[in-house]
Amino acid sequence: MENLNTTNFIAKPETTLAAMQTSIDLGKTKDEICEALKKTSKKLSRLQEKMFANNRYSVLICLQGMDTSGKDSLIREVFKRFNARGLHVYSYKTPTSTELEHDYLWRHYIALPERGKFSVYNRSHYENVLVSRVHPEYVLSENLPGIHEVEDIKDGLWQQRFEQINNFEKHIAQNGVIVFKFFLYISKSEQKRRLLRRLDNEKHNWKFAPSDLEEREHWDAYIKYYEEAIKNTSKPHAPWYIIPADDKPTARFLVANTIFDVLQKYDIAAPEVADEVLENINKYRQQLRSEK
Amino acid sequence: MENLNTTNFIAKPETTLAAMQTSIDLGKTKDEICEALKKTSKKLSRLQEKMFANNRYSVLICLQGMDTSGKDSLIREVFKRFNARGLHVYSYKTPTSTELEHDYLWRHYIALPERGKFSVYNRSHYENVLVSRVHPEYVLSENLPGIHEVEDIKDGLWQQRFEQINNFEKHIAQNGVIVFKFFLYISKSEQKRRLLRRLDNEKHNWKFAPSDLEEREHWDAYIKYYEEAIKNTSKPHAPWYIIPADDKPTARFLVANTIFDVLQKYDIAAPEVADEVLENINKYRQQLRSEK
Repeated sequence: MENLNTTNFIAKPETTLAAMQTSIDLGKTKDEICEALKKTSKKLSRLQEKMFANNRYSVLICLQGMDTSGKDSLIREVFKRFNARGLHVYSYKTPTSTELEHDYLWRHYIALPERGKFSVYNRSHYENVLVSRVHPEYVLSENLPGIHEVEDIKDGLWQQRFEQINNFEKHIAQNGVIVFKFFLYISKSEQKRRLLRRLDNEKHNWKFAPSDLEEREHWDAYIKYYEEAIKNTSKPHAPWYIIPADDKPTARFLVANTIFDVLQKYDIAAPEVADEVLENINKYRQQLRSEK
Repeated sequence: MENLNTTNFIAKPETTLAAMQTSIDLGKTKDEICEALKKTSKKLSRLQEKMFANNRYSVLICLQGMDTSGKDSLIREVFKRFNARGLHVYSYKTPTSTELEHDYLWRHYIALPERGKFSVYNRSHYENVLVSRVHPEYVLSENLPGIHEVEDIKDGLWQQRFEQINNFEKHIAQNGVIVFKFFLYISKSEQKRRLLRRLDNEKHNWKFAPSDLEEREHWDAYIKYYEEAIKNTSKPHAPWYIIPADDKPTARFLVANTIFDVLQKYDIAAPEVADEVLENINKYRQQLRSEK
């Protein structure tokens, strides 16, 4: 498992979701997987410190997946050892009226990580080529010139958005943002199981919304649009990883492992003491000790 | 003058600044030009109201020019009849530490106009391919990966930035922002005259800085980099206008006229009373009048 090849999960132009797995056998017990996640997430938090001190690269992690695919709990478990100072999680819901006064990338642009920091987007700009395609009436609230009714929305709009998103991600990658995009891929039957559990479990049933069932009816459309978005926007500088997510500990480990695997290849210098400090270190000691 | 063809000022791929004029004779007296500006700026402010009500298009106006080229006073005169509610002016100076923690477009992205509004950038993202080329050491403060000293900055960086800027402007144009870029073009001798006047005039000499003279020594380099930036980024969706600016009233009129000329061609519906209001207008009147 130490030699797990994370590149296997990268979406390629010929990728179809039908050919990808929603579950994978890592050949380990649940306890072993949780232990491996713990180890990886510790290594990741040490890397976070180094990147913070280095202050050149930043990291953007976009999490997408159907309802109940485990995005929230994955964030909790993968990043629990991070220093909160250098980590921001943004959960994107229905855009606010201020956000709607700008182009759809604006709210994601302003939340980009500062140098040395991590931003996690729980749902992301990709919703504009996912939920907006399933419910094209949402696009009307953007007040785009020339789009006054659903009939005005042509296929060209989605192609244009893929290009806009690619240019956006290329620009930030060229300026030092390392971009990860994860699709937590669950099966329709696993979603059914998780929704039923939400209903049955008093601790969790606040998370159930009747709209979950409505969205579930659009399952096939979502899969189709996910596939199209992933195909059109998986690039070397901003790859999509398709993570088998029917088993939560496995998905969490795979995400943590992928992030660590990619980041450790960057040339990130450990923080160094400045020459001036090094030369005068004894003088500083003396100064402090001789204080009256 | 009413038939002045604003497209004459649009930079074309073959444009050289040497072939463009820093002054132009509109065949009118100074008073006539000021009167024409007043008329145009009134028409522009009525258009602003209509665009605000329409709430679809927004307008971004980038102003660039050498020191003393008249950017500040142009903003004052052209927009003085605007409703401040729908106009934001941003004067970009040395980036703050927060701004430097992000890519160079970030501070300009967050300031983009809301739908129906105008943003004026007094200096803009173009400084990143102008002053940053004359003083490449400024790029070091951006903490870009791989750029540790001035020698690491290759020509490819500027080409990459032209592409990034083009993609950025294309994206916002596709999402309803109408983009204008004005280069206020003055001659070197006119700058000398204006700098001397600043020194001589007690009311204005607070605007003089010794660095103005240092920057003036880089005149030829600035002209070269302006020309290259303009050539590489003048696009149909975001054209550069080269405005002869040796005479301030003329430059102000040309800018106002260009903006009006372009905007009036957009299909911007006047605000309409809602059908419901129209149908019930007498009922509402009655309700108000019968109030005890």
